[in-house]
Amino acid sequence: MKNNYPIDVRNKVKRVPKRGHYDRATIYPILDAAFLCHVGFSVDEQPFVIPTAYGRKDDTIYLHGATTSRMMLNLEKGIPVCLTVTHLDGLVLARSAFHHSMNYRSAVVFGTARLVEGEEKLEGLRIVSEQILKDRWDESRQPIEKELKATTVLRLDIDQASAKIRTGGPGDEKEDYALPIWAGVVPCELKWGEAEADERLTPGIETANSVKQLLSRL
Amino acid sequence: MKNNYPIDVRNKVKRVPKRGHYDRATIYPILDAAFLCHVGFSVDEQPFVIPTAYGRKDDTIYLHGATTSRMMLNLEKGIPVCLTVTHLDGLVLARSAFHHSMNYRSAVVFGTARLVEGEEKLEGLRIVSEQILKDRWDESRQPIEKELKATTVLRLDIDQASAKIRTGGPGDEKEDYALPIWAGVVPCELKWGEAEADERLTPGIETANSVKQLLSRL
Repeated sequence: MKNNYPIDVRNKVKRVPKRGHYDRATIYPILDAAFLCHVGFSVDEQPFVIPTAYGRKDDTIYLHGATTSRMMLNLEKGIPVCLTVTHLDGLVLARSAFHHSMNYRSAVVFGTARLVEGEEKLEGLRIVSEQILKDRWDESRQPIEKELKATTVLRLDIDQASAKIRTGGPGDEKEDYALPIWAGVVPCELKWGEAEADERLTPGIETANSVKQLLSRL
Repeated sequence: MKNNYPIDVRNKVKRVPKRGHYDRATIYPILDAAFLCHVGFSVDEQPFVIPTAYGRKDDTIYLHGATTSRMMLNLEKGIPVCLTVTHLDGLVLARSAFHHSMNYRSAVVFGTARLVEGEEKLEGLRIVSEQILKDRWDESRQPIEKELKATTVLRLDIDQASAKIRTGGPGDEKEDYALPIWAGVVPCELKWGEAEADERLTPGIETANSVKQLLSRL
């Protein structure tokens, strides 16, 4: 039995249902392989989609931002939120224009957010930081009271979610396979470049371990 | 005089206003350097954020999808839409946890969509295709009537937009520069890998020019 999120009209993948997934074992890795999401919320029926960093722990997504941020001020009211993470994995080139596609992994999360304070606030910040760059939190100068006061941390408990995944080559119409048109996949991924030290870096300080770990994964 | 979109509370960048831009000369290149956006819309106060391909021409964004797609069916009603494009350019590692940031270019577009038919429908499809992979449209077997009927093309005229851009190294508190903590930037970008021919490709067909052009830009 899969550990599924509840499925209804809100999160059900309608188009190409076989690409839809609702189990945590599929959705968590998609969420964990990124740290940038697009958060959707509405104010007076006007939707906003804002890119922001996040961190996941179990069924909770932590978001952080300035206390003055419009997004944070709206989200902390507990309005409905949709949070989407997309990994583009490649272009899928078919023989027909119609059957062109992309390979991707995306996760769409539904829930509402609420403010956290105290220990959980600091832990939320650490979880976001760890998701962006493992071990950087412990390398950094820790937040002081003034900085914590300027920061809002929200937890969004996942009510529902779905993933949509496409992999593999093009699927053309039977009669199109004979056409003299190249078809295939051009894969892509986000790649890290060489670390650039701050020009004000004190001489003699070695590149951070967190960065070395990131670049050694290349 | 800059060729700005109108600015009001909807598109004004509140947080770090100096990173906000409203002129087409800044916003168009951000839109043109991607082909995947996140479209936000609301149904009964529930926001949805869906990743999808797009193409821009002047102040119009074309979207395409299956006629049965929930997003397309809702968007064609002319409801308010927010369409966001984000390029992640790097991690900005400061000495303090608080001053960590990212380098990025994002564009947030507001407008409403409407269905297009006939010549503009085909032209909209071509514009989306060209944005994804230049010259692929002409290489491909063109759409037939049945395929066009299964496809919805929408044009979203940009009412308002804003861009937000961060570049450069970390900005730390004065007293933190002396800390023995590495600081700097780790750049990143989406990279294309080697093209993988479809296993059913007729032997002897050379890699498409569109793909060669894409890969020669690396």
